[in-house]
Amino acid sequence: MDILLLSNGKIAGNTNIMEFAQSAVIEQIKRTGAKKLVLIPYAVIRSSHDDRVAAVQDSFNSFGLDCEVIGLHQAQDPVKAIEEADGILVSGGNTWVLNKTLHDLGLVGPLRKAVLLDGKPYIGWSAGTNICCPTIRTTNDMPIVTAAVLSSLNFVPFQINPHYLEASVEGHMGETRDERIQEFLEINQHEPVIGIPEGTWLHLLDGKLSYHAANGKKLKLFSYDNEPVYYEQGQDIQFLMSHSC
Amino acid sequence: MDILLLSNGKIAGNTNIMEFAQSAVIEQIKRTGAKKLVLIPYAVIRSSHDDRVAAVQDSFNSFGLDCEVIGLHQAQDPVKAIEEADGILVSGGNTWVLNKTLHDLGLVGPLRKAVLLDGKPYIGWSAGTNICCPTIRTTNDMPIVTAAVLSSLNFVPFQINPHYLEASVEGHMGETRDERIQEFLEINQHEPVIGIPEGTWLHLLDGKLSYHAANGKKLKLFSYDNEPVYYEQGQDIQFLMSHSC
Repeated sequence: MDILLLSNGKIAGNTNIMEFAQSAVIEQIKRTGAKKLVLIPYAVIRSSHDDRVAAVQDSFNSFGLDCEVIGLHQAQDPVKAIEEADGILVSGGNTWVLNKTLHDLGLVGPLRKAVLLDGKPYIGWSAGTNICCPTIRTTNDMPIVTAAVLSSLNFVPFQINPHYLEASVEGHMGETRDERIQEFLEINQHEPVIGIPEGTWLHLLDGKLSYHAANGKKLKLFSYDNEPVYYEQGQDIQFLMSHSC
Repeated sequence: MDILLLSNGKIAGNTNIMEFAQSAVIEQIKRTGAKKLVLIPYAVIRSSHDDRVAAVQDSFNSFGLDCEVIGLHQAQDPVKAIEEADGILVSGGNTWVLNKTLHDLGLVGPLRKAVLLDGKPYIGWSAGTNICCPTIRTTNDMPIVTAAVLSSLNFVPFQINPHYLEASVEGHMGETRDERIQEFLEINQHEPVIGIPEGTWLHLLDGKLSYHAANGKKLKLFSYDNEPVYYEQGQDIQFLMSHSC
């Protein structure tokens, strides 16, 4: 498998989605030879799915990659479209709506087959990263739709918190991100959570996990009853893949 | 009914939970003559339920109210404890765990009876306010537990977003609170959302809804396809109660 899990779509100064990770995207597309990429836009709520497809096509064009981006929402048969695609892209937005739609349309199995068995490249950002965990229980998003199913694609055996940040608004008494993750650990004591700051990503290539940061920011590993541990680009984080859950 | 829905527990400078709304709490307790109050502490994850009961007892003591606060988690029979109490208090914390526990223990019906039919006073803050809406779909909390049930106590016919704030962390690209609420409205076009800032509360007394702000902050009403509208303490917001959902 060749899976890129980006914390988010753009950081300050970026024009295009995935721009901060463009070298990784270019390498992945060249390595896999993917030409026809299907974009899953279901997380996008506040703008049109077509616009998101166009924006992602612009990204590939600006990266100098000769790829065609096809919106899965335009496909008559989404399962067939996944089968016929060379690679899978999943946009950020609302994780709840995205995950519910994947389940409603019966796409979880086909996506797992495409990525894990057929080795098609996968790039997700934000909500598109959340859904690669066993469940979406570490999303930051508001549960705007009644979606009973929290299980997800389970490409990695740990929970990711994308858009991870330590800063908070001064004087605001709502829980900090760390407090929310600590609550998760109290309830789920055997499941670690990886906070990945904006501008960073995880890469899972043929079972080997690595961490990358366009801005030098660190990954933060939270596990029950332990102080959080920071990891930076280049440090070995392969042990995370052997966690069973 | 006599329901106080606080945005949060404490604002800067407060020693005790509910302190910023203490005049409203004192009036409610004197009006209803409640002596024996049951505290529902299930939302509390990062500290003990007993400690939360003690903290809320301290609040009542400091307000000069001669009330006994009993933790529902200590009751052999929680339904009976609600029936025997003079009033209901619901602490903030994680809304998902709170709402799931209410459903798991069969407390939704007994709480609705106690508050709506028997007229027992209710005070909730943060998660304890979220659960008074038709559903918990406008919580800010992380879904740390797989809880399929999103429907809740439905004391008011609109969704509340507690800890509402307009500020965001500079440079952070994650959705702002307003963007999250706009996503909610895109999916749920006939359901308004009321953002109540920290230090403010709603009061529902015998069907009459009013808004109160210890700090002068305004309520913000979000509805589909309309610009948000601000309301301040003293303005008529009764129309919110006639919204059907």
